[in-house]
Amino acid sequence: MDLGVTDKVRPLIEQVRNMVEQEIAPLDKEFHEEIGKHPSGDRFKHTDRQLEILDGLKAMAKSRGLWNFWLTGSDKGYGLSTVEYAYLAEEMGKVGIAAEVFNCAAPDTGNMEVLERYGTQAHKDRWLKPLLDGDIRSAYVMTEPNVASSDAAQLAFEAKKDGDHYVLNGEKWWASGAGDPRCKLFIVMVCTDPDAAKHGRHSMFLMPSDLEGIEVLRPMHVFNTDDAPHGHMHIRFTNVRVPAEDLVLGEGRGFEVAQGRLGPGRIHHCMRAIGQAEKALEMMCRRGLQREAFGKKLADLGANYDIIANARMEIEMARLLCLKAAYMMDTVGVREAQPWISKIKVVAPLMAGKVIDDAMQLHGAAGISQDFDLADMYTKVRTLRFADGPDAVHRRQVARAELRKYTNAKT
Amino acid sequence: MDLGVTDKVRPLIEQVRNMVEQEIAPLDKEFHEEIGKHPSGDRFKHTDRQLEILDGLKAMAKSRGLWNFWLTGSDKGYGLSTVEYAYLAEEMGKVGIAAEVFNCAAPDTGNMEVLERYGTQAHKDRWLKPLLDGDIRSAYVMTEPNVASSDAAQLAFEAKKDGDHYVLNGEKWWASGAGDPRCKLFIVMVCTDPDAAKHGRHSMFLMPSDLEGIEVLRPMHVFNTDDAPHGHMHIRFTNVRVPAEDLVLGEGRGFEVAQGRLGPGRIHHCMRAIGQAEKALEMMCRRGLQREAFGKKLADLGANYDIIANARMEIEMARLLCLKAAYMMDTVGVREAQPWISKIKVVAPLMAGKVIDDAMQLHGAAGISQDFDLADMYTKVRTLRFADGPDAVHRRQVARAELRKYTNAKT
Amino acid sequence: MDLGVTDKVRPLIEQVRNMVEQEIAPLDKEFHEEIGKHPSGDRFKHTDRQLEILDGLKAMAKSRGLWNFWLTGSDKGYGLSTVEYAYLAEEMGKVGIAAEVFNCAAPDTGNMEVLERYGTQAHKDRWLKPLLDGDIRSAYVMTEPNVASSDAAQLAFEAKKDGDHYVLNGEKWWASGAGDPRCKLFIVMVCTDPDAAKHGRHSMFLMPSDLEGIEVLRPMHVFNTDDAPHGHMHIRFTNVRVPAEDLVLGEGRGFEVAQGRLGPGRIHHCMRAIGQAEKALEMMCRRGLQREAFGKKLADLGANYDIIANARMEIEMARLLCLKAAYMMDTVGVREAQPWISKIKVVAPLMAGKVIDDAMQLHGAAGISQDFDLADMYTKVRTLRFADGPDAVHRRQVARAELRKYTNAKT
Amino acid sequence: MDLGVTDKVRPLIEQVRNMVEQEIAPLDKEFHEEIGKHPSGDRFKHTDRQLEILDGLKAMAKSRGLWNFWLTGSDKGYGLSTVEYAYLAEEMGKVGIAAEVFNCAAPDTGNMEVLERYGTQAHKDRWLKPLLDGDIRSAYVMTEPNVASSDAAQLAFEAKKDGDHYVLNGEKWWASGAGDPRCKLFIVMVCTDPDAAKHGRHSMFLMPSDLEGIEVLRPMHVFNTDDAPHGHMHIRFTNVRVPAEDLVLGEGRGFEVAQGRLGPGRIHHCMRAIGQAEKALEMMCRRGLQREAFGKKLADLGANYDIIANARMEIEMARLLCLKAAYMMDTVGVREAQPWISKIKVVAPLMAGKVIDDAMQLHGAAGISQDFDLADMYTKVRTLRFADGPDAVHRRQVARAELRKYTNAKT
Repeated sequence: MDLGVTDKVRPLIEQVRNMVEQEIAPLDKEFHEEIGKHPSGDRFKHTDRQLEILDGLKAMAKSRGLWNFWLTGSDKGYGLSTVEYAYLAEEMGKVGIAAEVFNCAAPDTGNMEVLERYGTQAHKDRWLKPLLDGDIRSAYVMTEPNVASSDAAQLAFEAKKDGDHYVLNGEKWWASGAGDPRCKLFIVMVCTDPDAAKHGRHSMFLMPSDLEGIEVLRPMHVFNTDDAPHGHMHIRFTNVRVPAEDLVLGEGRGFEVAQGRLGPGRIHHCMRAIGQAEKALEMMCRRGLQREAFGKKLADLGANYDIIANARMEIEMARLLCLKAAYMMDTVGVREAQPWISKIKVVAPLMAGKVIDDAMQLHGAAGISQDFDLADMYTKVRTLRFADGPDAVHRRQVARAELRKYTNAKT
Repeated sequence: MDLGVTDKVRPLIEQVRNMVEQEIAPLDKEFHEEIGKHPSGDRFKHTDRQLEILDGLKAMAKSRGLWNFWLTGSDKGYGLSTVEYAYLAEEMGKVGIAAEVFNCAAPDTGNMEVLERYGTQAHKDRWLKPLLDGDIRSAYVMTEPNVASSDAAQLAFEAKKDGDHYVLNGEKWWASGAGDPRCKLFIVMVCTDPDAAKHGRHSMFLMPSDLEGIEVLRPMHVFNTDDAPHGHMHIRFTNVRVPAEDLVLGEGRGFEVAQGRLGPGRIHHCMRAIGQAEKALEMMCRRGLQREAFGKKLADLGANYDIIANARMEIEMARLLCLKAAYMMDTVGVREAQPWISKIKVVAPLMAGKVIDDAMQLHGAAGISQDFDLADMYTKVRTLRFADGPDAVHRRQVARAELRKYTNAKT
Repeated sequence: MDLGVTDKVRPLIEQVRNMVEQEIAPLDKEFHEEIGKHPSGDRFKHTDRQLEILDGLKAMAKSRGLWNFWLTGSDKGYGLSTVEYAYLAEEMGKVGIAAEVFNCAAPDTGNMEVLERYGTQAHKDRWLKPLLDGDIRSAYVMTEPNVASSDAAQLAFEAKKDGDHYVLNGEKWWASGAGDPRCKLFIVMVCTDPDAAKHGRHSMFLMPSDLEGIEVLRPMHVFNTDDAPHGHMHIRFTNVRVPAEDLVLGEGRGFEVAQGRLGPGRIHHCMRAIGQAEKALEMMCRRGLQREAFGKKLADLGANYDIIANARMEIEMARLLCLKAAYMMDTVGVREAQPWISKIKVVAPLMAGKVIDDAMQLHGAAGISQDFDLADMYTKVRTLRFADGPDAVHRRQVARAELRKYTNAKT
Repeated sequence: MDLGVTDKVRPLIEQVRNMVEQEIAPLDKEFHEEIGKHPSGDRFKHTDRQLEILDGLKAMAKSRGLWNFWLTGSDKGYGLSTVEYAYLAEEMGKVGIAAEVFNCAAPDTGNMEVLERYGTQAHKDRWLKPLLDGDIRSAYVMTEPNVASSDAAQLAFEAKKDGDHYVLNGEKWWASGAGDPRCKLFIVMVCTDPDAAKHGRHSMFLMPSDLEGIEVLRPMHVFNTDDAPHGHMHIRFTNVRVPAEDLVLGEGRGFEVAQGRLGPGRIHHCMRAIGQAEKALEMMCRRGLQREAFGKKLADLGANYDIIANARMEIEMARLLCLKAAYMMDTVGVREAQPWISKIKVVAPLMAGKVIDDAMQLHGAAGISQDFDLADMYTKVRTLRFADGPDAVHRRQVARAELRKYTNAKT
């Protein structure tokens, strides 16, 4: 069970870290200052400068061969293992736009996985190629406003067969990135047969984002911001017609696709959260050594030694667990690795949230202000506790797997 | 030690609760939707509709005699005790603009305390009267960007005597409400003698907010928002001249004024946080009974019973502690009540943050969106962990008081 | 809602505290050193010296009029309110044998409540009088080894009517104090009708502890000790015959009696736990000021300030909650006070356990040794998390009470 | 960084696990029931039956070649890496006497490390051989009653040179195993020069346990038990004369020896704690599936799913961290691995204590009784939070290592 940095990935980590620190971080700051300045007033349209920054960095990454690392176990990309990729994800997690620069951003990576694994050749030609090239972006459209979507069997968005098409009606929300004009592809989970058995009710469609009848109602807010320009959209579908051949794998196999999609993505999210936690701990230490109060360095006051030590211990443990989940993914496959992925999905965002929160506190009020990245980091990892299933659902999975060891019957 | 609702305050609680629920809450929603819509683009200017809402509600409160409750132990207001007032603060904490409607909002209440206790007649005539009438607002200007201001002895903002004036130079930040054009009075803590003994270095000035040389640099952000229209301002003072008679109590007595000011304010803050926690628990229960997943009500799933029970227990304990701190304030005075105030300052915002966080989680992603108040509530109570001294400083006070019981020497 | 020390109880607190500190504490140490030294080898028989200590102190308490305080709201004792008594219970909690010295020890107090409230005159004459006089002790026999007894409806210990007697068969355990030869009375919860509705299945019997067919099988251990000489007995009943007139209230009313019994007892337990926490905090402070490491006082090292401050805050909150539960008991009665009692039953032992654990840690290994009382205190409050219902059951009660506010149906 | 089970160690794990479960566990129960039954009344003398059990099992282990696994990186034992050994330690941790059966018990392993690494040939001949053969046992005698021994520089036990001998005077305590008559060797840390630099004051002596002037004063209690027959002794040394050649490495090098000794031992302790936590989790699941209350399995009630899931996640993370510390020990040596060892020393016993505590609670009162091993397990891991340095000292080490990354100066 090699969880370490391999010779293969070591130089990549180095290159990614350097590019993140030296090239991306400074421009990321500028990128964020541009938010909301598109002349149209549309906060989800990138400004020219933003596109210039993104495209320039993407070209640089591509030219250095730092591109599409996430295509693990494949001959298309680097052929990295999930464990190897995890280390890169950690580095990319430290700066907001970094993942996109290397074409490793969610939800595109998960969506590309879907196309790669389950798509027809036609699907791949139309959607996978431009995504792999970083020419378009995509959204994953699953969550619904009217049901607790963590129980996916409840998803009720309707798709009715009509000849060789399906007609879609309903609302979806939290479709991340769906407001970006560069987002051309929607992957949408629909209910094709509400009377089927629990895991055969749903189907997964590919469709252009600009089909007639698709209407973005509003961006969902995240802790008072719209998270522009990426954003999380509330969308209404009214009599949207999609050809049957754009079903992935076929009617009733939506769950299967969703399960296959979510494994790696959760590992990526979690490793990026580890990266955020590392960054927060570094900020906490630096601030603690820099500022003084009551005649001592902040680091030397109160419980700060313990807070720093706990952060270090918690980060190490969460990282090792993520690496083990990645290792399971590499060796026993998505289905068997599922309880491991549930574990890290609970652990990593909670841990990162705690470390960032402690770092904010040590910074004083400045810690929640625009002068530091901490508040932004905090809200992002807090949001992660809902994404891809809330903590409670993952804990439930872990407990059920544990109890099954001692029963023959399903618990 | 009567910590209960007295006959005197019972009908007031009833009236305040009713007005908050029936009159203020609906308009609060509209008030918030107006934020940032002032034609000038200045987000800290209220729109006409916002002023209409506020002024209408204030007039209603005044006409019903629900006004200036905070003037505890005084013959000017209701003559409520701090304990009695605490119950009202809890109700006012449940809706954003409620405290202002009853002329009980920070930082005005603390500032009025300063004027009432320590001001000259001239100070009172000029500033206290319009504040008591709700005609103007005020700001308390203390925190500085370049030092850990929790150790107030470090505050370095310079005030040099020049004849019968002082000349002020320096920067202050987190001056809440200072960007509101209705804010006419600044109370500013300055360093008049950096070489004096620790608690004699500083002095407190009253000054109009539009003195020459005062420049609002920017609003400080709080978790990515500017908290408009109230806001928290970063201000530069350049050769601002203030007459010596606008010193409160006299040179070198800034600490004394600050200490006297902060006691009641912290109790108000904490009781409002209790109100927020109650609101969050109610939302958590209602959502838990409404939504279903995996064939059960959310409330019946996972650890939700325990989460709800813990919230209820934590709220009750924090409230009782706040009431006891209020009781101490009423009976032994600010100085002796200090360790009690430190206790609640740690306990109440932490508790409320936890309960609101749990409520967010039970709501799913909607819980952090604009569809519920929870994210806004969360960031406000999180901010409170810095306001009037961060947790670490208050814990330090509590520990020192505890250890002093066993030493003769100061610990 | 007066939760304070009344003029009535103030001098009693003073007297009890003094007697605990000056008279009881020194002898308590000697009492404990005598454990297991009875010539018979029976660890549950007091040695002559132990009896001498107990009887001497009891006589002293009685002669000073410090006796049977627990008889709240009654004209038999002091007529103290539960709130008033709570303060005394806290003092008595600080030293092991103190509660017995003042005839305020569990399970006698609860058992006397049962006799006082529900007993016939004959019951009172036979059992209540000698208990009130401190001449005998008693046991409450309810928990069974074969079922999760926290769901009391499951209790299966069989009592079959046979003429004007009942014949009892079954096993009970955790009958505290039942091994003490001075324990003359057993109050036993039996199942008289397993087919009755859930709360009508059980009945409560009074019986002499030496009836034929009663056999003490073994003492249950608590963290590796038998808790002698009090102890917690595992008892087998074989064809034990009890006359029908020794039923309390009548057949099928066992639940009613049990509920009425448990309220005050839980408050007493919790207030004694508060007393233990206070003692642990004092020990923690004293040790922290006394010992040094790395050139500093232990108190000044690491997170100890925060640990001390947290302990102080948690104690204050738990005490106030206990006092409020006591107040509810005094004003709205046992049934309505139930959710309040559940709250403190969760909160107080957990809090005390945490404070004592922290105190142990600050003492180094000595903290868990015989050189300090901490380990003994720890195991006692840990045990309390099972007594009178485990935490989980009480949290469940609190949550259900909370959710009921928002439903018409029972949740 | 291979943290997995190697082909080399896999069959050993299998054999050890089987022998622990099938041979040792049943006899361990009998072994414990014999405690205190030695005819002499000396609880630290094994009964004949106890010796028969131990010797029989040791012979069996030896004959199967399952012996001295701990000798990592050596050609004397199996040549296992620390990572490989860690997996075996976990298995041995599950049953009390198992580690001794395989000659892998503390403090002998650490003591043998000292002899192996730092001993002269004479030391090895006299002490190492019989220890490796399991013919004698040994004690490590370091902690002192009068100073906070976690700051080892404070150790004041005096050793004065007198010709070619040293004369020792002082008291030591918590000398584990020192009361066992089979314990023939003491390794004692003494202060040879109180005026030397901090890390040069102490020296380490080997000596027979029955030297004139050595007197066992008493066993230290651990949560009310004497932990017989192993025990933790308080010892007085009065003019004990030790020849200078029994100094390890030479005068003033006690710290060096202590540091080298403690690394592996802490890993062993921690991995055994992981084993205990696994056992507790299994017990918790089994009990949760077996018992019912309120019409449901305990596992399905309250927060038990979350409690089980958290236990599983915490165990996995702690184990991975231990394995990483072991890996560091194997690859960068004791000194560099130090902060990693500090991390697990904090994490593993705390985690195991939490899991065992939760398991106790789910068992109801039985969970702390003699009917289950949980209370015994709990007190052992609780004790571990003091052994080899309390948590606070290790957190301090971790924080200092972290802060040093950002300073040139020592923090």
